Amino acid sequence: MVARLTDAERAALAVSLPRWTLVPAAAGQADAIRRRFAFADFSAAFGFMARVALLAEQQGHHPDWSNVWNRVEITLSTHDAGGLTAQDVRLAQAIDRLDQA
Amino acid sequence: MVARLTDAERAALAVSLPRWTLVPAAAGQADAIRRRFAFADFSAAFGFMARVALLAEQQGHHPDWSNVWNRVEITLSTHDAGGLTAQDVRLAQAIDRLDQA
Amino acid sequence: MVARLTDAERAALAVSLPRWTLVPAAAGQADAIRRRFAFADFSAAFGFMARVALLAEQQGHHPDWSNVWNRVEITLSTHDAGGLTAQDVRLAQAIDRLDQA
Amino acid sequence: MVARLTDAERAALAVSLPRWTLVPAAAGQADAIRRRFAFADFSAAFGFMARVALLAEQQGHHPDWSNVWNRVEITLSTHDAGGLTAQDVRLAQAIDRLDQA
Repeated sequence: MVARLTDAERAALAVSLPRWTLVPAAAGQADAIRRRFAFADFSAAFGFMARVALLAEQQGHHPDWSNVWNRVEITLSTHDAGGLTAQDVRLAQAIDRLDQA
Repeated sequence: MVARLTDAERAALAVSLPRWTLVPAAAGQADAIRRRFAFADFSAAFGFMARVALLAEQQGHHPDWSNVWNRVEITLSTHDAGGLTAQDVRLAQAIDRLDQA
Repeated sequence: MVARLTDAERAALAVSLPRWTLVPAAAGQADAIRRRFAFADFSAAFGFMARVALLAEQQGHHPDWSNVWNRVEITLSTHDAGGLTAQDVRLAQAIDRLDQA
Repeated sequence: MVARLTDAERAALAVSLPRWTLVPAAAGQADAIRRRFAFADFSAAFGFMARVALLAEQQGHHPDWSNVWNRVEITLSTHDAGGLTAQDVRLAQAIDRLDQA
């Protein structure tokens, strides 16, 4: 099983993933990271979603995500581990690279 | 502008769209219809999402939707009209036809 | 039925669609326009393809296209009309706008 | 580097991949396997393509493929190896499983 991030690793996310927000654990919910994206229109948003889907399947790790027209919100957490792990960091970094491409 | 459904039209949705749930208007939120889908895995869920995206762009009417691995939840409402309209019904019917294909 | 482009309209494509190549009619084949695209990798190519699919379904006019890793080749012709029509020009222009986005 | 299939392995494809056609090597071209698919419409074809794209990226092995409306043709060969390898067989098998799902 993948280990959850330590407190030090969690604190380091502010530097390594500055565009993601740490969502603390709440009652019945694991902690997570979240990023919101806005595109020109639905087409651009969906083209991005197709690429995120490819990343997710490639990494065997899938987002909790939603879309409304030009907006996409992605939340990452590792359900099996009950919170944030290195798998979430890796997927977030790959998603960030798409956005810069 | 598209007219909102009348009360009679809204009541008829239980028959015409039996797999969709009517989500009543809440404070600051328009009424909507919602359906949850479960697939074998992420791949099947995303193949379905790609087809819903095609329908949305074809109809010029887009869902508020989310996905977690094999699950997809679609909520339809017409933002410009502040609630349910015939555009939502038409998109829901087209989505239902995908599911039966 | 959609009318085929006149010779004058066909000649004007060199100006309106400079990145597309006119493929003359051959035995048993209608004339067409063709453009080749190269992307950074498969992910970028497929993100683009998803957007072209949305355009095609929106316009009710579909490409003859192929992909090998980072390359996409799109050929447009109107089968019902037996050659190039304004529908091909419209789809090509919309695809060109994606590429500039 | 991945080894090309032996003659015995190539002959066994008729049993393990009965719906694929062996395309022998021609001048300047490696041997390959090819399958044609027909769907109800473009939407069904593109939903399938999205799933094949996920498989390709997951396996790090990509098809040479084309689409015209409801038809998809997929050709598999391993460019680095100059012909058919176990990577092509694995991707073909995964694609066949989609079609049965």
